[in-house]
Amino acid sequence: MTQAKIKIGIVGGTGFTGVELLRMLSTHDQVQVAVITARSEAGMPVAEMFPNLRGVTDLVFREPELESLSQCDLVFFATPHGVAMEMAPALVEAGVRVIDLGADFRLEDLGVWSQWYGMEHSAEILMRRVAYGLPEWYRQAISQARVIANPGCYPTAILLGALPFLKAGLVKSDGIVADGKSGVSGGGRGAKVAMLGAEMSESFKAYGISGHRHLPEIQEKASQVAEKPVSVTFVPHLVPMVRGMETTLYLPLTDPASSQAEVAALQSLLEATYADEPFVDVMPPDSLPETRSVRGSNLCRLSLSRPQNGNTLVVTSVIDNLVKGAAGQAIQNMNILFGWPEDKGLQQIGLMP
Amino acid sequence: MTQAKIKIGIVGGTGFTGVELLRMLSTHDQVQVAVITARSEAGMPVAEMFPNLRGVTDLVFREPELESLSQCDLVFFATPHGVAMEMAPALVEAGVRVIDLGADFRLEDLGVWSQWYGMEHSAEILMRRVAYGLPEWYRQAISQARVIANPGCYPTAILLGALPFLKAGLVKSDGIVADGKSGVSGGGRGAKVAMLGAEMSESFKAYGISGHRHLPEIQEKASQVAEKPVSVTFVPHLVPMVRGMETTLYLPLTDPASSQAEVAALQSLLEATYADEPFVDVMPPDSLPETRSVRGSNLCRLSLSRPQNGNTLVVTSVIDNLVKGAAGQAIQNMNILFGWPEDKGLQQIGLMP
Amino acid sequence: MTQAKIKIGIVGGTGFTGVELLRMLSTHDQVQVAVITARSEAGMPVAEMFPNLRGVTDLVFREPELESLSQCDLVFFATPHGVAMEMAPALVEAGVRVIDLGADFRLEDLGVWSQWYGMEHSAEILMRRVAYGLPEWYRQAISQARVIANPGCYPTAILLGALPFLKAGLVKSDGIVADGKSGVSGGGRGAKVAMLGAEMSESFKAYGISGHRHLPEIQEKASQVAEKPVSVTFVPHLVPMVRGMETTLYLPLTDPASSQAEVAALQSLLEATYADEPFVDVMPPDSLPETRSVRGSNLCRLSLSRPQNGNTLVVTSVIDNLVKGAAGQAIQNMNILFGWPEDKGLQQIGLMP
Amino acid sequence: MTQAKIKIGIVGGTGFTGVELLRMLSTHDQVQVAVITARSEAGMPVAEMFPNLRGVTDLVFREPELESLSQCDLVFFATPHGVAMEMAPALVEAGVRVIDLGADFRLEDLGVWSQWYGMEHSAEILMRRVAYGLPEWYRQAISQARVIANPGCYPTAILLGALPFLKAGLVKSDGIVADGKSGVSGGGRGAKVAMLGAEMSESFKAYGISGHRHLPEIQEKASQVAEKPVSVTFVPHLVPMVRGMETTLYLPLTDPASSQAEVAALQSLLEATYADEPFVDVMPPDSLPETRSVRGSNLCRLSLSRPQNGNTLVVTSVIDNLVKGAAGQAIQNMNILFGWPEDKGLQQIGLMP
Repeated sequence: MTQAKIKIGIVGGTGFTGVELLRMLSTHDQVQVAVITARSEAGMPVAEMFPNLRGVTDLVFREPELESLSQCDLVFFATPHGVAMEMAPALVEAGVRVIDLGADFRLEDLGVWSQWYGMEHSAEILMRRVAYGLPEWYRQAISQARVIANPGCYPTAILLGALPFLKAGLVKSDGIVADGKSGVSGGGRGAKVAMLGAEMSESFKAYGISGHRHLPEIQEKASQVAEKPVSVTFVPHLVPMVRGMETTLYLPLTDPASSQAEVAALQSLLEATYADEPFVDVMPPDSLPETRSVRGSNLCRLSLSRPQNGNTLVVTSVIDNLVKGAAGQAIQNMNILFGWPEDKGLQQIGLMP
Repeated sequence: MTQAKIKIGIVGGTGFTGVELLRMLSTHDQVQVAVITARSEAGMPVAEMFPNLRGVTDLVFREPELESLSQCDLVFFATPHGVAMEMAPALVEAGVRVIDLGADFRLEDLGVWSQWYGMEHSAEILMRRVAYGLPEWYRQAISQARVIANPGCYPTAILLGALPFLKAGLVKSDGIVADGKSGVSGGGRGAKVAMLGAEMSESFKAYGISGHRHLPEIQEKASQVAEKPVSVTFVPHLVPMVRGMETTLYLPLTDPASSQAEVAALQSLLEATYADEPFVDVMPPDSLPETRSVRGSNLCRLSLSRPQNGNTLVVTSVIDNLVKGAAGQAIQNMNILFGWPEDKGLQQIGLMP
Repeated sequence: MTQAKIKIGIVGGTGFTGVELLRMLSTHDQVQVAVITARSEAGMPVAEMFPNLRGVTDLVFREPELESLSQCDLVFFATPHGVAMEMAPALVEAGVRVIDLGADFRLEDLGVWSQWYGMEHSAEILMRRVAYGLPEWYRQAISQARVIANPGCYPTAILLGALPFLKAGLVKSDGIVADGKSGVSGGGRGAKVAMLGAEMSESFKAYGISGHRHLPEIQEKASQVAEKPVSVTFVPHLVPMVRGMETTLYLPLTDPASSQAEVAALQSLLEATYADEPFVDVMPPDSLPETRSVRGSNLCRLSLSRPQNGNTLVVTSVIDNLVKGAAGQAIQNMNILFGWPEDKGLQQIGLMP
Repeated sequence: MTQAKIKIGIVGGTGFTGVELLRMLSTHDQVQVAVITARSEAGMPVAEMFPNLRGVTDLVFREPELESLSQCDLVFFATPHGVAMEMAPALVEAGVRVIDLGADFRLEDLGVWSQWYGMEHSAEILMRRVAYGLPEWYRQAISQARVIANPGCYPTAILLGALPFLKAGLVKSDGIVADGKSGVSGGGRGAKVAMLGAEMSESFKAYGISGHRHLPEIQEKASQVAEKPVSVTFVPHLVPMVRGMETTLYLPLTDPASSQAEVAALQSLLEATYADEPFVDVMPPDSLPETRSVRGSNLCRLSLSRPQNGNTLVVTSVIDNLVKGAAGQAIQNMNILFGWPEDKGLQQIGLMP
């Protein structure tokens, strides 16, 4: 006996997250994408915009409107901030679950949210039904939520690497450095001169140094787990490649001389933390995870080092920014929400080379 | 009246540094490359290996041997470590100046050298005639040296960014983090699977995390300038591009509350330090130097930030690893050594896009 | 009831074709890879060489030897030419099916083979049990063969585009131009200077212009289908990307003025030819198939144009050189050989972006 | 005695051609850029938009207007078609020379021009004072012109390779195939989704197959030199790299059996044609010119082959699309116009790797 498929809506389907959701959902046997919206492309077949989906989907972009979305069981928002919080209350009211791949529900502190996103938050009423969608750390809350705030890509990569040590009190809550690097698909599919191939190729640079919106997200969640305020110096960089994200974390050890700070002990802690997780792969110490090893897959690979046996623990973390950093994690959250095996539709292996 | 040109020898001309030396020296009107050596390619015209030099040079690779090299005024070594220290003593004896683009003379502490390079140092006798070839900080010594140790690429980018603040005592001598990123030409022209285009493209990873040979060089020179031991956590990364190097430095401020730690004051210090330097461009605070802006040029571009007005000063630094990080800096050192204008033959503008 | 899985052997598993076979076979529920060989890496876990396979396979490379391979139901050779023809006779004798992803069995004319491959052919006895593994044109023969010659990547892309028109007599059998372009993974995983990232990036060039080994293969199969000698001018080029192959075919129309030479008629012929094919996607006329639309997928996308309504029909064809051009097509052949649905294990969607 | 520098104006300075003109002109000792215009960036320092020019130029973009441009000796137009033809008449009237890097003056047949560019031509009166700026074939006319139509990038690469053989009658005037490949900087600096780094990287495709505006230009000039109508099938392709253009020409030999069609004879003809040309490098037969060998330089490298000794002559041609294909050729034309050495300011060597 096959269960009836649930109906999925996708709001904002013309970005890289949208096409990635469609690619991955097409291998998921419990769902059917019923609606995909894109205001300015209404009427265009999805496969015309994304030729990899020719023969995979017959969907046509349509105008976003509540009526059709309300008939879905689940709606993904792959939209700029400010969109989901406008539409989510009515959808939740209508019994629809919401997974927001944008930023509207990522911060519990709405004052901080307003400050970083430059607008008032209009859906405060929903906040108590929201869970932060990092399954490895918030699984229980996710399973009971109506709205899931899918984490940012940098927070995913950084938190998975840092939280085990913050929780155990092994690293200091200040002096943490997170040096992030992202492929250009992280910049979205909007037409911007700086993201042209002729501008970003064969070059490397920092960006957002005076303040990236993922910083308050990282600090809020890290502080929750550490149970004290955590401050991070976070500098993101743009890598001349399409997909992939690496973060190198420099974590000052609380007590470098203790036995808990020995590499073997740190490694054991990391392995134990993620022993049962299907999407976190802890590599041996001093490994060098490469982003291509997770290209197209929902995995996060982690490795730790303690260079020169010094005072600083280094953790490197790689994800595909569009998968574990966006669409894949959203599907993982959906699986939790609907009680399906957590890896359903998420068994893609990294494409290498 | 034109001065007679000096005769140049290049040992190890088949790597990327070799072709870059030839490209840049061809625009320098005081020199003539008389000899270029390459053991296994002896007899091959240089322009056959490097087609960009067709019509520029008629040189033919020949076996390295002291006789012809001794008749040069200056010999560049673009060789793996261990080669220059074998040949340099005889050349210096014969009155030839030596600029080693390899690692043989970079460390004053030969014990540390032996430990990191895994062999005994065979030219201790030369060490007192050696200068470290970072002109902005060792110009006086360079002008009087017989042997110049051309700095590593990472040390160049990192030291230019960090030394002003270490010298002034504004940043702590430990807890420094240097997150380095290099294009693949830094890995040399040897045939290695990991450096194949199909392996390194569209991927990003850390490497050398357990100890890169540029670390002792960075720490020794930083300690000299700071006048106390400086320790650095240094993690290099490989960027899927050919040329370019960026380092992001995280420097813990000694006294974050002091007026000297204000951005304007830090910026003034940086600008004052390099005011007369032809090859260091201090950008406004919170700028984001991109590696392509210095592609093919001898410039280092620096920018500083103090994110969230926190305790950490961030300095980003970009160079072309093959120019300011190798061949260009070697020519700058040559110009100092021979009393020519320091920018002779070094006026190439970054190729962009 | 589940059928017992068949046992697979892979000879030469350290190249890009090897890792791709493993990636795709891991999603195929009728097979189990029992043996994978690599002479110089014997003893190394496969997932150590290919980190995308961590957690997917526990296989360890072992020495190639007939004993273990003979216990397989099917052996893939992903080896340089000359290897398969040495081992295949004994395997076939032992009842094993062979799919050679190398070149040993691609030409029926062994005289031509010897001339292009520079050695005698040692398995002439097997030739009558060989089928050329281009399913869309040789499916019947494949289903009954003991040995399958998996086509070269260029022949796959070129033949799929040209054969419909050659068979129908609509294009001349000489004057055909095939301009091919391949990503660098086509050059293999051997360590060669010319294939270094620092050498091949940001550059484009022709190669093999005086004679590429895929040319006699293209001409032999084209002549079989056209039923007369077909000659092709074929120039391959290297594209600075990892995966993907595009060929642009210039086909001189036999009778430009006939109604059969009108675009609509040509399009109908092409669509009719491939109407039932799961892995050929005929796009509308004047479409511009891009290689990324088939990245990681087994599809060939074709489009035709008749520029300026002139005498030349242009057909563009894209494949992933490692999938439809190698591992994917090999699995398609396996499915035919064992009577499974032809798309089993081959439902990956192109990874885009 | 130094001659006074001439005054240069540049209209449309924000594209890749604009920055390249500035880079190259900065090394030219007879000129001074006095005016650079950009309507929407008026007031912005040029070095802010193009950081490679920091320290090189203090120019500020200003509104385009005739008054300041009329005081220049020479004005370059680096604008979309339709702009130069509006402003050029008044400038010529004022005694200013004009070099149009756009398309307004490339076709002598204004009827064909209107058809391909979709607008009326408004400067017919100027046409008799126009020369086509391909110096190797139109040098005499260039030296006497008031307006120079700088050729398109594809026409430059294709004509330099094909004209020697067309002029000598050695190849047929129909059946010619030109398969062109261009880096993405050829697509300009406008913000278009298709040219985003995340869209064009790691992919290859044909474009403009139904008719590229460079086709009538190629055909008109080829016909002039061949002295009979020449028709070409031209398919351009987009290469995932920033700079560089390669064209592979397939030229049907008029009389394959004649001694003139032997490779040695064809090579002699090609070498003789360009023996005195500073910017055309004829390589030995069967060479494989790579685009990176001319990156940043004004050279065109050519090589010929006659594969399988067949009926088709293959000529491969590489240029830097922004240099010999645009800004460099414009400066070469300027040098001819003003009677300076033709290579002044054009001695940059290809940047490799």
